[in-house]
This record gives sequence, C-alpha cells and structure tokens, in this order.
Amino acid sequence: MVDLIGFDADDTLWQNEALFRSTQAEFRSLLAQYHDETWIEQRLYETEVRNLVHYGYGIKAFMLSMVETAVELTEGRIGGPEIRRILDLGREMLRAPITLIDGVAETLACLADDHRLMLITKGDLLDQESKIERSGLRDFFRHIEVVSRKDALTYSRILERADIAPTRFLMVGDSLRSDVLPVIEIGGAAVHIPQPSPWQHELIDPDPDVRRRYTELESIRSLPDFIRGMIREPAEKSDEGSASEVFESLNDRTP
Amino acid sequence: MVDLIGFDADDTLWQNEALFRSTQAEFRSLLAQYHDETWIEQRLYETEVRNLVHYGYGIKAFMLSMVETAVELTEGRIGGPEIRRILDLGREMLRAPITLIDGVAETLACLADDHRLMLITKGDLLDQESKIERSGLRDFFRHIEVVSRKDALTYSRILERADIAPTRFLMVGDSLRSDVLPVIEIGGAAVHIPQPSPWQHELIDPDPDVRRRYTELESIRSLPDFIRGMIREPAEKSDEGSASEVFESLNDRTP
Repeated sequence: MVDLIGFDADDTLWQNEALFRSTQAEFRSLLAQYHDETWIEQRLYETEVRNLVHYGYGIKAFMLSMVETAVELTEGRIGGPEIRRILDLGREMLRAPITLIDGVAETLACLADDHRLMLITKGDLLDQESKIERSGLRDFFRHIEVVSRKDALTYSRILERADIAPTRFLMVGDSLRSDVLPVIEIGGAAVHIPQPSPWQHELIDPDPDVRRRYTELESIRSLPDFIRGMIREPAEKSDEGSASEVFESLNDRTP
Repeated sequence: MVDLIGFDADDTLWQNEALFRSTQAEFRSLLAQYHDETWIEQRLYETEVRNLVHYGYGIKAFMLSMVETAVELTEGRIGGPEIRRILDLGREMLRAPITLIDGVAETLACLADDHRLMLITKGDLLDQESKIERSGLRDFFRHIEVVSRKDALTYSRILERADIAPTRFLMVGDSLRSDVLPVIEIGGAAVHIPQPSPWQHELIDPDPDVRRRYTELESIRSLPDFIRGMIREPAEKSDEGSASEVFESLNDRTP
C-alpha cells in the first residue's frame, strides 16, 4: 500500500519555528528605539514574503530580509554595529543545536525497518544538510531531497525519479501548504501533524472537501499505527474501494 | 564507454564569474571613500572564503559577505543607504540575463542525442534552478543536481543513485577543484575547460601526475570529438588497457 514515506524536516522532525521566533524577538528589541514591536514584526513579515520569490526559504534569506527591514524601518539611519548584530543573529541560527521533536527518533527507527523513508525539505541547501547530519537521523533515510519549493510538480518529479506511483506515497509534515495539499493534488496520501505555533505564512484553512482527503495526527508517535491501519484497510474492502475512500474512513477515526 | 556525462553550470554553460566581477567593481567604488580598491577587494575575498563553511556558494552568500565586509571596513560607519545599495546589487545579480558560453547549445544538442546528460552544480538552490529554466538548456538534461559541495563523496552518491559505475562517468567543467579532481579521485573521467579569468579561490596547480589523469579542452565545441575518441580507443586496445591508460594516451593528443 505504501512504498515510500516522505518526511518534512523543519518542525516535523526538529524544532525550527521557535528558533526564528526567538531571533525575531532579538531583532525587534534591536530596533525598539525606532518603532513599536508589532510594527517591526509586521514589516519583517512583509519583507520575508515579498522576498520568497527572490531568495527562497531558509536562514540566509531571513538574514537578508532582516537587514533590508532594518534599513527601511530606520529610513537609512541604521548603523554598522546594528547591521553586524543582525548578521551575528543569523550566524547563531545557523549553528543552533538541533532539538528533535518528541517521539521522532523512536518512530523513524520503528518505520525504517519496514519502509523506505525519504526526507523532503526546502530551505538553504547547506544549512539543511548540516542539520540532517547533526540530527543523527540521516541513516533512517534512503534518500534526501532538498528542494526550492514543494509544489505538485516537485513531488511528481521526486516520485518519478524514485519510480514510485503517487498512490503508493505517503507524505508526513507540519505544513498544509507544502506537505499536504500538493501531495493529495497528485493522488498521494498525506498526514498533517500541526505544530503549536506555525509561521503566519503557513496559516491556511482548507475547505471540508479537502480536509477529508488527508489525516491529521497530534503526534508523530501515532504514525506507525496509522500506517498499519492503511495497510489493513484495503484487504477488508472490495476492489472498488479507492485510496481516497480509505483515507476518508481513516480520517473519521482521527481525533 | 561513457554512460553518463555530467556538466558543471556556472562558467561551463553560461557566464557567471564576469557577473561577480562587475558587482565587485561596484562594491569597491561604493566603499572607495573609505579604503583603496585593492584592499577592499582583498578583504571581500577573505570574508567570502571564511564564510563558505557557514553560507556555502551562491549569490545570497555573496550578498551577506558584501554587507559584512562593508561594516568591517568602515568600522561600523557604513550607512543605511549604502547597505541598501549592496542589497540592490545582489538583487540585480539574481535577475541578470543568462549569457551562454560560445558553442554550448549546439554541443549539448549534439551530445543529448546519444548520451545521458546530467547537470551538477553548486550554489543557491533557487538561483540555480532559475538560471537553468532561463537558460533554455533544461531539456537537454535527464537529471539536475544542485549540491552544496562537489567533493568525491558527493559524486559517489550521485553516481550510486543513478546506478552508474564511476568508470563510465565523464564530468565536464571549468573548475579543477570541483569538477575534475574529485571525479578522477573516484575513478571517473574529467574534461577541464578553463575559463579566461577564474575566481582566485579556484586557482590551483595540480602536479604532473594528476594532470595526466584528465584532459584539458579549450572549448566545449571539441567535446563531441573527444568523446568519440574515448569510445573508439578501447576497441583498438587490448583488454588490459585500463581507463586511466586510455586517458593518458588521449591526454597526450590534447593541445
């Protein structure tokens, strides 16, 4: 039923958004003499989103957006020492320790015995590779794909290359936009494991028809049971039971 | 004889170093009131090389290194408008038109008929993908690999995944450090096509023993003839003729 399980990395396997948030807090206090903090946060967010098309995702893009926001918000009055501090904040992010999310190591160890696992992540190439190495999780994954965006075309190309039909692919991640919607669009299965406080850009609200086509789990620890359910389910059904029906029925059981 | 031909991208298929040089010239004149230009250039180079381990290759890394150098060289006296100008310079690099190197399109068209071609490039993921799309060369390549570094391990992994033995792989590029030495290290073949004015970091001088193990061509236009020679050669030799012997004999004929 499932030949390949794809995992997102940031905020699915290890904490990431918390690191961005704590750096944002430092950035706000650095500029607190110029503007109030809500305004700084809102302008930084706008700059980040506007720059996604030029810089893509990741810490270097974030550093450049912080520098740009600082120049804009101070109308050019920003000084060299503050710019240096922003670069230092980014450098600290790049070498921050990896904090695995609860249950990740055990769950991957359990799944890797019987399944082919692939890490599919976007962001800075070098930074993502460095985090994978430092996470200690590398050996669980047969393949690692660092991509610039996660849309339906990206997933199609990855599956084509791995010679896997979309109906035999399951993607697991915290982002509806990147890990869930494009995968169900190409006919794959997806598990959404929301994180407590997602980035504003990730907040989307799919309509009920779409919601029925993926499963939400509270913790990665529930994944092995869920996958066992996926495998058992079709045997109990007639051949007419489509993958999406199986998913709907499973979805109903999900808290 | 050759099942897969790998091509570097920057300064092998299209001009790249020239773009960095013209931006460096703008950067020097931006800081000319603070220091003489040779000193600025030298300090920028040192910052770039020091940051490779943190930021990797590519334009975003270069932008961050320019900002850092500007803050350092002015002892923090740099102003917001100059920082903004540096960010603009980087943004202009990201959308600069692609200038193909002479003979590239015809040569790839000729080789793609009979060979499996792969693009293997390092740098910013998003920027490299954007350049590949804009170059019009995408369809010549069966696979595209954007990697964070090009060492022997990287090439081994790429070949393993493509299920190609190193002895059946030929890599073509302008960088001895990235495109030639790691490939011959794992037993592959390599063609070096030097560019007129390489980045200082690329200037290395291999000893004669190493030089004999790859071929230098002046232009990509000579590549199809060279590959025909590689294919013809083993048939004329006894089975004991190793790949490296074939290369030595071919190398002798290369101007």
